[in-house]
Amino acid sequence: MTSHASADPAPVALRAPAFILVRPQLGENIGAAARAMVNFGLDDLRIVAPRDGWPNERAIAAASRAFDFITPRIFPTLDDAMADLALVYATTGRRREFVKEVLGPRPAISRLEGASRSGIAAGILFGPERAGLETDEIASCQALLTLPVNPEFPSLNLGQIVVILAYEWAQTGGRFSLGDVAFPQILANQAELAGLFDHLEAELNESGFFHPPEKTPAMIRNIRASLARPGFTEQEVRTWRGIIKALAHGRGRKNS
Amino acid sequence: MTSHASADPAPVALRAPAFILVRPQLGENIGAAARAMVNFGLDDLRIVAPRDGWPNERAIAAASRAFDFITPRIFPTLDDAMADLALVYATTGRRREFVKEVLGPRPAISRLEGASRSGIAAGILFGPERAGLETDEIASCQALLTLPVNPEFPSLNLGQIVVILAYEWAQTGGRFSLGDVAFPQILANQAELAGLFDHLEAELNESGFFHPPEKTPAMIRNIRASLARPGFTEQEVRTWRGIIKALAHGRGRKNS
Repeated sequence: MTSHASADPAPVALRAPAFILVRPQLGENIGAAARAMVNFGLDDLRIVAPRDGWPNERAIAAASRAFDFITPRIFPTLDDAMADLALVYATTGRRREFVKEVLGPRPAISRLEGASRSGIAAGILFGPERAGLETDEIASCQALLTLPVNPEFPSLNLGQIVVILAYEWAQTGGRFSLGDVAFPQILANQAELAGLFDHLEAELNESGFFHPPEKTPAMIRNIRASLARPGFTEQEVRTWRGIIKALAHGRGRKNS
Repeated sequence: MTSHASADPAPVALRAPAFILVRPQLGENIGAAARAMVNFGLDDLRIVAPRDGWPNERAIAAASRAFDFITPRIFPTLDDAMADLALVYATTGRRREFVKEVLGPRPAISRLEGASRSGIAAGILFGPERAGLETDEIASCQALLTLPVNPEFPSLNLGQIVVILAYEWAQTGGRFSLGDVAFPQILANQAELAGLFDHLEAELNESGFFHPPEKTPAMIRNIRASLARPGFTEQEVRTWRGIIKALAHGRGRKNS
């Protein structure tokens, strides 16, 4: 006998791409990168020759406890850091000295995910803040990854580049659903809405609101449309019925 | 007579959404937000009651000269800041106390762009770092905007949330093309590649490489496929033809 759990097919192990910070200068940016990776479910952070050594207090402060979830690996050289990777993209600004394909973030992440699903170890390089990656470092990558930035102000912060790509990773795979924050289950149904419409229309009709008669169908249609749009809850339908009643037959009002 | 320029149709003015930082605490985050907005072509930054007043030196330092391109407007209250806006989304974490639609970043930005194209003034609210937006502040917005984050580590940095949405804005409208960093115009054409293939095949044939004969077509096909994949430049084709020639008839080699 096997348990139900063990009879299920094994889940496909998806190895998320490594994010490799090459010679980062500011601890704040390392911490921001770590935080962004954990926010979006990435777990393979590698750091090549951080300027201020490791561990770095400013990085830890900026990470806001992300290092409880992620343990960076520190490497002396980029070659060491990417030795096990078969597909590596280099983030760069606009450069022309290479004959390499240039990918925007969405197609790049989509391809990296395809690689990951095929069991291919993949990664993304991020250069140091001031100068970016060196020519030799870019040369050994499979493609360049560039963000669509304002040409008049193209300099992106390192932590910001990381969070954009981490976010794209989470989006591409649909990893963290928004499903459990969607509409609550207390929306009024169509019958309840119809009851509200009918109540309002009856009172408006009583009040002489619909004039001229030939325009009444269009007026009713427009009112229904505007009441349908907010997506009332059951409670709101009850509230609005109370409002209609109060307006039409309020305490202080003399009925004829 | 009119000039050519004045005869062109006027471009449609696209008013980008306002990004409204509500009671931000840290100047660094205000600066990061400004930088991210300029990076991605946004220009309407509004700040409600910044904790440390305005101007803020830390914000200016963190903005990395973004304030040369963008001038924030400071408001005492949120109502003042969004008085002119007709469509406002509130960024929040996972909250259930409202009956409001919850949008992920991509559909939210897509709708905001649709609104902008229709001339509707739109905006996004970002709450203070520690506590986020207050219930009353969220209540007056048209929808909630939530990012798909790791439920075990959902707390996003304010500057990071701003850059993700600014990036989505640039992506959705395709504002900053990657076109001018795409392939250079020096790729070898098919005839040049065919010349390389033919040269290689002739030499391999000469060398007795193709064996057994019945497998030759498949071997040739595989070699062609692997040579086509890198997207050689004209120069690389010449280099590879030199390599083939050197291997087959190199100086140090005795030909039979």
